[in-house]
Amino acid sequence: MISKEEFLKKLERGETRLHELENLIFESLGKGDDKWAEACSAASAVRLAFVEKIKSKKLNDIKTHFIDTAVKPGVVGIENQIGGAVTPLGIAGPIKITGDYAKGEFYLPAATNEAALIAGLSRGCKAINENGGAKTTVTRNWMTRAPVLDLGSAEKARELADAINQDEKFYEKVRAAADLESKVSKLAFIETFQIGKKVWLRFAFETGDSMGMNSVTKYSANAVKEIKKKFANAKLVALSGNMCSDKKSNHANIILGRGKSVEAEALIKREVLENVYRTDARTIEKINFTKNYQGSALSGTMGGFNANAANTVAAMFLATGQDAAQVVESSSCFVTAEDQNGDLYFSVSMPNLEVATVGGGTNFATAKECLEILDCAGAGKKPGDNSKKLAEIIAVAVLAQELNLLGALANDYELAESHIRMARGK
Amino acid sequence: MISKEEFLKKLERGETRLHELENLIFESLGKGDDKWAEACSAASAVRLAFVEKIKSKKLNDIKTHFIDTAVKPGVVGIENQIGGAVTPLGIAGPIKITGDYAKGEFYLPAATNEAALIAGLSRGCKAINENGGAKTTVTRNWMTRAPVLDLGSAEKARELADAINQDEKFYEKVRAAADLESKVSKLAFIETFQIGKKVWLRFAFETGDSMGMNSVTKYSANAVKEIKKKFANAKLVALSGNMCSDKKSNHANIILGRGKSVEAEALIKREVLENVYRTDARTIEKINFTKNYQGSALSGTMGGFNANAANTVAAMFLATGQDAAQVVESSSCFVTAEDQNGDLYFSVSMPNLEVATVGGGTNFATAKECLEILDCAGAGKKPGDNSKKLAEIIAVAVLAQELNLLGALANDYELAESHIRMARGK
Amino acid sequence: MISKEEFLKKLERGETRLHELENLIFESLGKGDDKWAEACSAASAVRLAFVEKIKSKKLNDIKTHFIDTAVKPGVVGIENQIGGAVTPLGIAGPIKITGDYAKGEFYLPAATNEAALIAGLSRGCKAINENGGAKTTVTRNWMTRAPVLDLGSAEKARELADAINQDEKFYEKVRAAADLESKVSKLAFIETFQIGKKVWLRFAFETGDSMGMNSVTKYSANAVKEIKKKFANAKLVALSGNMCSDKKSNHANIILGRGKSVEAEALIKREVLENVYRTDARTIEKINFTKNYQGSALSGTMGGFNANAANTVAAMFLATGQDAAQVVESSSCFVTAEDQNGDLYFSVSMPNLEVATVGGGTNFATAKECLEILDCAGAGKKPGDNSKKLAEIIAVAVLAQELNLLGALANDYELAESHIRMARGK
Amino acid sequence: MISKEEFLKKLERGETRLHELENLIFESLGKGDDKWAEACSAASAVRLAFVEKIKSKKLNDIKTHFIDTAVKPGVVGIENQIGGAVTPLGIAGPIKITGDYAKGEFYLPAATNEAALIAGLSRGCKAINENGGAKTTVTRNWMTRAPVLDLGSAEKARELADAINQDEKFYEKVRAAADLESKVSKLAFIETFQIGKKVWLRFAFETGDSMGMNSVTKYSANAVKEIKKKFANAKLVALSGNMCSDKKSNHANIILGRGKSVEAEALIKREVLENVYRTDARTIEKINFTKNYQGSALSGTMGGFNANAANTVAAMFLATGQDAAQVVESSSCFVTAEDQNGDLYFSVSMPNLEVATVGGGTNFATAKECLEILDCAGAGKKPGDNSKKLAEIIAVAVLAQELNLLGALANDYELAESHIRMARGK
Repeated sequence: MISKEEFLKKLERGETRLHELENLIFESLGKGDDKWAEACSAASAVRLAFVEKIKSKKLNDIKTHFIDTAVKPGVVGIENQIGGAVTPLGIAGPIKITGDYAKGEFYLPAATNEAALIAGLSRGCKAINENGGAKTTVTRNWMTRAPVLDLGSAEKARELADAINQDEKFYEKVRAAADLESKVSKLAFIETFQIGKKVWLRFAFETGDSMGMNSVTKYSANAVKEIKKKFANAKLVALSGNMCSDKKSNHANIILGRGKSVEAEALIKREVLENVYRTDARTIEKINFTKNYQGSALSGTMGGFNANAANTVAAMFLATGQDAAQVVESSSCFVTAEDQNGDLYFSVSMPNLEVATVGGGTNFATAKECLEILDCAGAGKKPGDNSKKLAEIIAVAVLAQELNLLGALANDYELAESHIRMARGK
Repeated sequence: MISKEEFLKKLERGETRLHELENLIFESLGKGDDKWAEACSAASAVRLAFVEKIKSKKLNDIKTHFIDTAVKPGVVGIENQIGGAVTPLGIAGPIKITGDYAKGEFYLPAATNEAALIAGLSRGCKAINENGGAKTTVTRNWMTRAPVLDLGSAEKARELADAINQDEKFYEKVRAAADLESKVSKLAFIETFQIGKKVWLRFAFETGDSMGMNSVTKYSANAVKEIKKKFANAKLVALSGNMCSDKKSNHANIILGRGKSVEAEALIKREVLENVYRTDARTIEKINFTKNYQGSALSGTMGGFNANAANTVAAMFLATGQDAAQVVESSSCFVTAEDQNGDLYFSVSMPNLEVATVGGGTNFATAKECLEILDCAGAGKKPGDNSKKLAEIIAVAVLAQELNLLGALANDYELAESHIRMARGK
Repeated sequence: MISKEEFLKKLERGETRLHELENLIFESLGKGDDKWAEACSAASAVRLAFVEKIKSKKLNDIKTHFIDTAVKPGVVGIENQIGGAVTPLGIAGPIKITGDYAKGEFYLPAATNEAALIAGLSRGCKAINENGGAKTTVTRNWMTRAPVLDLGSAEKARELADAINQDEKFYEKVRAAADLESKVSKLAFIETFQIGKKVWLRFAFETGDSMGMNSVTKYSANAVKEIKKKFANAKLVALSGNMCSDKKSNHANIILGRGKSVEAEALIKREVLENVYRTDARTIEKINFTKNYQGSALSGTMGGFNANAANTVAAMFLATGQDAAQVVESSSCFVTAEDQNGDLYFSVSMPNLEVATVGGGTNFATAKECLEILDCAGAGKKPGDNSKKLAEIIAVAVLAQELNLLGALANDYELAESHIRMARGK
Repeated sequence: MISKEEFLKKLERGETRLHELENLIFESLGKGDDKWAEACSAASAVRLAFVEKIKSKKLNDIKTHFIDTAVKPGVVGIENQIGGAVTPLGIAGPIKITGDYAKGEFYLPAATNEAALIAGLSRGCKAINENGGAKTTVTRNWMTRAPVLDLGSAEKARELADAINQDEKFYEKVRAAADLESKVSKLAFIETFQIGKKVWLRFAFETGDSMGMNSVTKYSANAVKEIKKKFANAKLVALSGNMCSDKKSNHANIILGRGKSVEAEALIKREVLENVYRTDARTIEKINFTKNYQGSALSGTMGGFNANAANTVAAMFLATGQDAAQVVESSSCFVTAEDQNGDLYFSVSMPNLEVATVGGGTNFATAKECLEILDCAGAGKKPGDNSKKLAEIIAVAVLAQELNLLGALANDYELAESHIRMARGK
């Protein structure tokens, strides 16, 4: 067995590269299946020591917060791991929810660096609870990937699109290829978009409780291979052609759906608005119109017709092990606020919540525990049940936070004052 | 001194509320200034115990990853803390950078749940290094907040806008009010936008090395108070009017700037493209056009003319304690790829990198250490130097990741295969 | 019979209102069916005389260019007509087209005030002809209207959407209602979009050779009435809910189709680029990327990835009697320019050409004649044939004009010089 | 002198090309300055005869509606003219306006093929008049052109941008070059935008009463030539780089201004809403929110937060000789509707009205007369006065039409019924 110090020296001398450590240590440990996690952990420690040496600094926190992401022999979780990055985790709520999947009272785990966020979220929950809680429903649910092919001419490109849309036998072959390697996922439909000689094929899959990006990429690749049997001259330009569209602000996802589309709503009584927010329904309605619609329209947004949905989405994504980069489109949100004779009808529409309770970061340490707090860790009874439940809970949390921020803004300078007060005395 | 168990019972009986624990325990500890952190830590533990009891589950990881965010007596860091949320942290690079602020070789800390991300980032760094590294520069730098006021008529609204834009004495008063409470920040300019009887005032501040959202909110509030001395009938609709625009996809930030605007570029030689990516400059150029421009145009994006900038932005934001919700607009990115006689000119333009090295989550545990790895923890010699350095490094990391993904896509199915291979054998 | 002078005096004394003239004169003429056009013409003359008197100016041109738009007794064409507005009409081309519907050589009528437009269009046609002309195809064809209904709760709104999407019997009833009063038009499909308690129902109809806006509004109203039988509490907020979306820049039309989606393409040989434009394919490709994609991306466009498609669309819309306000979305256009070993692959994708050869202004005087020049006046052999032909011709004209403008821009200052030279010596 | 028949034969035999006729006939007439208009008219007639022969059809209306656009010897107005295209012209109003430039009562000339448009416009005017008319003001006024230059590297590109923004002497030289050939126009400012190695320079000019597109293109070209003296390696990619942005939907114009930015507003009393529209302020407010904001947000618009602004803009542009292609961005419009204790505050914000009273089509026949009806033909007392007046009038017309359409929509199916009723009995 080779010592950590020796591996460290190998790194320093350039004999070993950072990403080779897992396998080398695994070998040095004798390669037993049970040794893989140990090797990964040791590799992580050696790399961290290497960085500490280069920077002449101790990195104790990174070391302390290491978590085991080893998967199985030969497969690392995250490459070149050196430890963990930690974000403060708080709890808001509870909030009463009546959803298709989420039913009952939930405490909301939220990981954030931002003071006032959890306090605001809790206050929003309180206001909603006083009226019996929020209702929520999932209206769409699929994950997409859109390869782009170059057919050489618009005529040929159209032929391909027509074959997908009109030739049932051909479609069936493509569908079969798409579903071939899948256990849980199922192709739902394909949409075609053409620019000149190129066609984007937007594959939409139901992916159970996993977010599904990686698997649908593979399944789409399989479908493309099938397509190329018939369209031999089709050139695959890119397996992802940005009509998917992943991790970029975009409007296609809003129109066509990606991830879960969720509605959440509540009625807030006049007295509650007065007691909790010293305001009234008409004022909230006007702020929503002026800020979330006119202001956002002026800013040129796609789907950003809300006050701060991303805050809640990011905090709950971090807590529950979602892909933080998907906060970009998952935070698309349309707020409705309507004065109904003094009471406030309040809703959020979230067209693109890309969440999972299986796979990715959801299996790791604190993420798994946060999902357990929400009673939706792992696969649901029926595929998709747990991830839809999670989506409903997050939508309701956004509802609470949006209500709270509009309520705060109704009091002129409260936004500034509360942030400053809570943001550690700066 | 009251024991944890007793506080737990108080919570259960509803006698104490979750957010009251810090102060109650602080009192019970005798209120010494040195007791605050202890009180916060204990409060966190009690709350976690409470959640464990309700859910009948042990939440050991959340407990283990607790980090101390206590600020000073009476000021909690994050409300209702119960522990920490941990994300695997890896290291990519090194990458050679010649920037205005970032100079030298940097290892890139990246926190992510996504397999293949760090491997890809490292491969991109390697390709760039073989041509001498990347160049980078910061072209704009300010933080904005845009209150919206209702003047009652378009005529009056215009008067306010004109006063800001044309009345130098009035502007000077407003500026003085905006800068009154500030130590580091300085008002740079105000832009006005009108819809009917309402005016949005977009205040832009230079904020040193802090991200600045909270402070500019306060300073904008002060400016609004000054404005209302002259325009007594102006009604503040919302201190944030969504022309700021924070945490929503939007185009105003791209045009007008928010956070740091950074350019990063490199020339990739023909041989490197062949060796590292088995491809050539013309192929990369065409993928960039078809995917990042035509595909993104088809998807209806604002600023999402890239392959996956958000992945890198999110991973480095998480590592360095930035606001994860700001990944939304910070990941705006325009990629240029041009075949220059077989070599590849490659650049990314990132108009809105909202980053800090001071304040917010940057002081916490692992975030601080990650900033130290990048030699830019805390305030720079001149205000802003460190945060600009961080922005340059992140832009170069995005450059590397974008190059790598386009290179991978050039090999037909590699994207699918590498993700699957690396994503723990699903 | 009452004289024109008497009617004029009645107008002046306020005894008669401008829009009443047709009926009053019709009565005074004795109301024969054959008198209606005469009455309309006389009413127009009286109104013009009234305006002349008020302004103390002779308006001879408006009088000269009067055209008869009378329809049938009791139905005026355009209300309050006083004459006609004339735009210079020129002819470009001919251009060789191989389309699904347009086949042969076509002279292109174009109405415009802009010097250089027709010259540029002709030069583009010439370049395309030298390579055998352009190919074109129509890929989608429907007209849409999207009423929005308020269901009171998100739950109920979802029920309505589900009924449309999943309840075949209900859908069949709605379809029957939509098609009830239609002779030519046919409901193609309905798409549903939800925000909170509201649902937008996007009805798509095939409308033969008419543009179809007005008729689909009526048919959608009939469908809504049927829907309200089942959903009695559904409140119709607006029969047009802006998801249609008519006469506003928007991305939904691009994704979902509205009007005709047309592709047009041509290969331009190296020598032609040299001879006609003193440039080469690579230069055109780079201008297209930098201007039409990076520049347009920077400007924040929806569908404006072209140089000046609207110029050609507007000029041919005016010539052929289309709705000028629909230039807004009909001019959406994506240009592709690819250097293929020195030759240039060039295409335009126009997702939203809203054109007709029947109804609206297409029956009037010069419009009808321009349609005759294009051999597509009136209804086609099969419904839709003529309007698709027109759409193909316009798309090819756009192709020619785009090619020409990029070619002009390749010569540095030619754009400025040619406009100035041609724009009457200013 | 050569006869028309002979020229016709020359065309048929291919000896003469269509665009050569003006000069050939001019020569045949002896070339006197007074012969140019005659030559242009004859050339037009010969070309029309040629088209008639080819198509074997008489085109009498095109001939009848010919208008003289000849400019001066050697300069044609519109190339290849064959006659005129006519659109029915009606008159709406009068409407009372209190603007900065438009003061008094105005009849509104509108050219359109759409039944119900003028009736609706008139009804809107009536409702506004009953409350004393509309107020309006012009808040911004400039025309822009944005060349794009390639500097080879981001560093160099930044240098250019910095020189424009910070080097006063250099800026002064560029300004002088921009203004050198101008009589009326004046450079107002330059804004810079960077993507990688490229810089867009957005020149903004005040252009008096002309729309200014062509002249600012020339002046921008002059400025670029001056810039290239200092930045010799700067490559002009395109004199128009689509950040101008002309005739494409875009958000930059909304933020930065192009053409005239105009506000128009009115208060509509409760009784007027009841009498004219059988509705109330709250209903109008809710339709505006649901349709013009939520619906438009859902549709993914840039600036299309209105019901049908383009209808009015197009109709008045056609009437007054504006550039019909500029309806695209000129119709950007944000509607505000607010219930104020039963009365309705109603406004439209039009950020981009690109209009002229001098040059282009404004000098021609009916266009000039329509401008005379509005008392704003030709140059104003001070440069810009007349074009601003026209912009104010159009904005108020849009105000009236928007009010009317929302009022019609408040009555469920009225939209469908009125269009059908008015649209000639189809």
